[in-house]
Amino acid sequence: MLPAKVRASVCGASRRILNSFRFYCQKTTRKQRICEAISSVEVGAHITVQGWVRSVRLQKDNLFLHVNDGSSLQSLQIVASSDLNDRLLTFGSAVEVSGNLVKSPSRKQDVELQADQIHVVGECNPVDFPFKIKERHSLEYLRQFPHLRCRTNVFSSLLRIRSEATAAIQSYFKENGFIQIHTPVISSNDCEGAGELFQVEPSGQGTDQDKENPHFFSVPAYLTVSGQLHLEVMSGAFPRVYTFGPTFRAENSQSRRHLAEFYMVEAEISFTKSLADLMKVMEDMFRSTTEHLLAHCADDVELFHKHVAPGQRDIVDLMLKKKFNVITYSEAIDILNHSSQTFSFNTDWGCDLQTEHEKYLVKHCGSLPLFVTDYPYELKPFYARDNQDHPEHTAAAVDLLVPGVGELCGGSLREDRLELLRTRLAQAGLEETYRWYLDLRRFGSVAHGGFGMGFERYLQCVLGVDNIKDVIPFPRFSHSCLL
Amino acid sequence: MLPAKVRASVCGASRRILNSFRFYCQKTTRKQRICEAISSVEVGAHITVQGWVRSVRLQKDNLFLHVNDGSSLQSLQIVASSDLNDRLLTFGSAVEVSGNLVKSPSRKQDVELQADQIHVVGECNPVDFPFKIKERHSLEYLRQFPHLRCRTNVFSSLLRIRSEATAAIQSYFKENGFIQIHTPVISSNDCEGAGELFQVEPSGQGTDQDKENPHFFSVPAYLTVSGQLHLEVMSGAFPRVYTFGPTFRAENSQSRRHLAEFYMVEAEISFTKSLADLMKVMEDMFRSTTEHLLAHCADDVELFHKHVAPGQRDIVDLMLKKKFNVITYSEAIDILNHSSQTFSFNTDWGCDLQTEHEKYLVKHCGSLPLFVTDYPYELKPFYARDNQDHPEHTAAAVDLLVPGVGELCGGSLREDRLELLRTRLAQAGLEETYRWYLDLRRFGSVAHGGFGMGFERYLQCVLGVDNIKDVIPFPRFSHSCLL
Repeated sequence: MLPAKVRASVCGASRRILNSFRFYCQKTTRKQRICEAISSVEVGAHITVQGWVRSVRLQKDNLFLHVNDGSSLQSLQIVASSDLNDRLLTFGSAVEVSGNLVKSPSRKQDVELQADQIHVVGECNPVDFPFKIKERHSLEYLRQFPHLRCRTNVFSSLLRIRSEATAAIQSYFKENGFIQIHTPVISSNDCEGAGELFQVEPSGQGTDQDKENPHFFSVPAYLTVSGQLHLEVMSGAFPRVYTFGPTFRAENSQSRRHLAEFYMVEAEISFTKSLADLMKVMEDMFRSTTEHLLAHCADDVELFHKHVAPGQRDIVDLMLKKKFNVITYSEAIDILNHSSQTFSFNTDWGCDLQTEHEKYLVKHCGSLPLFVTDYPYELKPFYARDNQDHPEHTAAAVDLLVPGVGELCGGSLREDRLELLRTRLAQAGLEETYRWYLDLRRFGSVAHGGFGMGFERYLQCVLGVDNIKDVIPFPRFSHSCLL
Repeated sequence: MLPAKVRASVCGASRRILNSFRFYCQKTTRKQRICEAISSVEVGAHITVQGWVRSVRLQKDNLFLHVNDGSSLQSLQIVASSDLNDRLLTFGSAVEVSGNLVKSPSRKQDVELQADQIHVVGECNPVDFPFKIKERHSLEYLRQFPHLRCRTNVFSSLLRIRSEATAAIQSYFKENGFIQIHTPVISSNDCEGAGELFQVEPSGQGTDQDKENPHFFSVPAYLTVSGQLHLEVMSGAFPRVYTFGPTFRAENSQSRRHLAEFYMVEAEISFTKSLADLMKVMEDMFRSTTEHLLAHCADDVELFHKHVAPGQRDIVDLMLKKKFNVITYSEAIDILNHSSQTFSFNTDWGCDLQTEHEKYLVKHCGSLPLFVTDYPYELKPFYARDNQDHPEHTAAAVDLLVPGVGELCGGSLREDRLELLRTRLAQAGLEETYRWYLDLRRFGSVAHGGFGMGFERYLQCVLGVDNIKDVIPFPRFSHSCLL
């Protein structure tokens, strides 16, 4: 801020001059992000930081503040004469502080700011503010305040990790020659016929308004449940493509594992004849992203491993140290049937694996990520490649199960043989609907396959967060769409 | 592929052994992406490439192919003995070719592949395939085949550029300390009351099915028209945040400028008191992304500048060379009223700028990108910051207009003063709905502002593409939702 005298003198002067003056002032006391200030070697510099107060302590002569600006988990310690105290300096208030960066006498931090100016730019009434100083609120409590929870340490750590994980995944794919495709959110195909679809029409226009043409898009339109089929379009021109975006399920569930809107990473790889190629990409992506997070968000990840999920770090280290396991579905069924544990769901060959089975299998195989391959043909959608084996008829599909979470990824080789695909679609009465999909096999078709990974489940797996609603900024689920 | 003799000998052997053998074979003839092969200095290496045939020419002794694998615009020239010809080697067919990479005798390319093996893995009937060899199809023609157009040079270039632009924008923000936030697609607030919203409910469940609780989310839910309000939540903890994702308008338009689903880049910056700060980020992002594209997608961009929009390169170079212009809305109105041109829409102070006005202004100011600031208060939504000036009452809002496209970005400082915001919301009867938004100003509020940029319009602006449907993989608009 300009001193009042200067401000008065520029009253009426053009904004341009005022702005240049402001620029000049900023130059003499450099604005700095707190993450930079904290790791600064340039002790003695006069800097200005801006952020939110995390703690206030007033002694006889001195005032101590911790200010955080979201650039890292760490706050900057501010030391000032108690004359600079202000009753508006409360937990959660926004401040602008200028002073000299000096070596800290305390062992807790390397540097601190000796403030000569503290300006409260946004007050925060501690009685009304739902978070209290030095109190560790539960994740469940925070969830009630989706518009404010980013102001807590734990949720701001989560958001930094989420942002960094997004960047790491995108880097992984870019470095490995994948093209990013923005697959559409609105789609006219209902993909797997999963049934649990959201439908889309303009607001205020019931579907029966215009009898002639009831739909905005002329056809029923849904929110995508997967970008796979659109990626398959692209895999006819690019051998490596991926998409990373929101997907939707109208599941009537409020479970810890499900959201109506969640993020998926999906990849499709052409000229691929073996599930091993897909598994390699899944494993590499998991490793490279996780190693990146441990290296670049160490403090933020540590907060979760210390306070949210003690013991999780060992699980993560083990996952990174050892190779992922691989078993076939048939081997998995064998293991389940030889187990002494009793399961609620049946374990006959042909059954779908339930969460209880997945957890048992992961544990049985050393609490490491576990690929299960070659599922019963009848369990898989029309596009999964027929292994043409017998008597146990399987499809070339693979799931990746991980400790704590269960299914993290699902993928398959795609049926690239026109006649087999046409027959299967005709049996399901879908030949006409998927004529365009058959076209992909008619013109320059190549063997290909792909997989999808639930991004929130990935974050749960690495951080040890139990409830999926705590790893996404604005969770949407049945009966809840806050903000 | 393994020779038949080897394949027979491993019949019945475990898949694992077969896979290791395949791996061994791949080692002796290295699989290479065509972009790598073309720029290879390692002439003489035996490599295998996989891709799609772009041209076939059979001479008496020799067969010439061009094979493209999407890794770059350039195809690799294959030279083979005419004995290796196959009637299935047609435009669009998928092939796997092995041979020695040698220096090319022709000036057209540095290297070519002397093939000793050509295998057609996916045929392509040239009669049925909608694209014809050596024919330059119009973008409009290609649009009829959303599942196949990625197989043309022009659309594969577009997709590489789009992927690279996405990465460049994300890098720009990351390098400048922005956190990426996944703002939700499904939202319960109808933001600007724009009216043109898509509403979302589970498929097959009319909104009147359950009288007690007609909505899946208990409240009406819409597809987002902007992530701004959700970014504003985050700007109370992170001074720099951005989002990059799909947004939606249920506009009944089939124009060259509008889509029902399009991508927006939105940023929000805290501790910002001047539009100049926002304009700086907009201009920097534009420059840095465009320079990145010209450097890293030179061939692809050149294709557009040569064949789709001749003259566009000069426009782009000029935009990068000079600083963007800045005028106020009032100055813009002055310019329009002193023009000799007659406009269809009125140009009195207070009117909204129309496309004809925007185009005139851009041209008048040197055909450079043009910021127009400080729009009439009454034209802007409730969150725009009141400049409290008179008699011409304006809000601190800014649009960025660019040659050829018109409005590319829109932004504003946000009303951070609780009482002013509360009054304005109360006048609109929205105080209760936006109680959470008022909370942001009650607790540690800071001056902030932000902007959004239409990503497709950005691509149109740089590439000179006239129709927005040609810069997105799967365009969605009124009466059209193919695939």
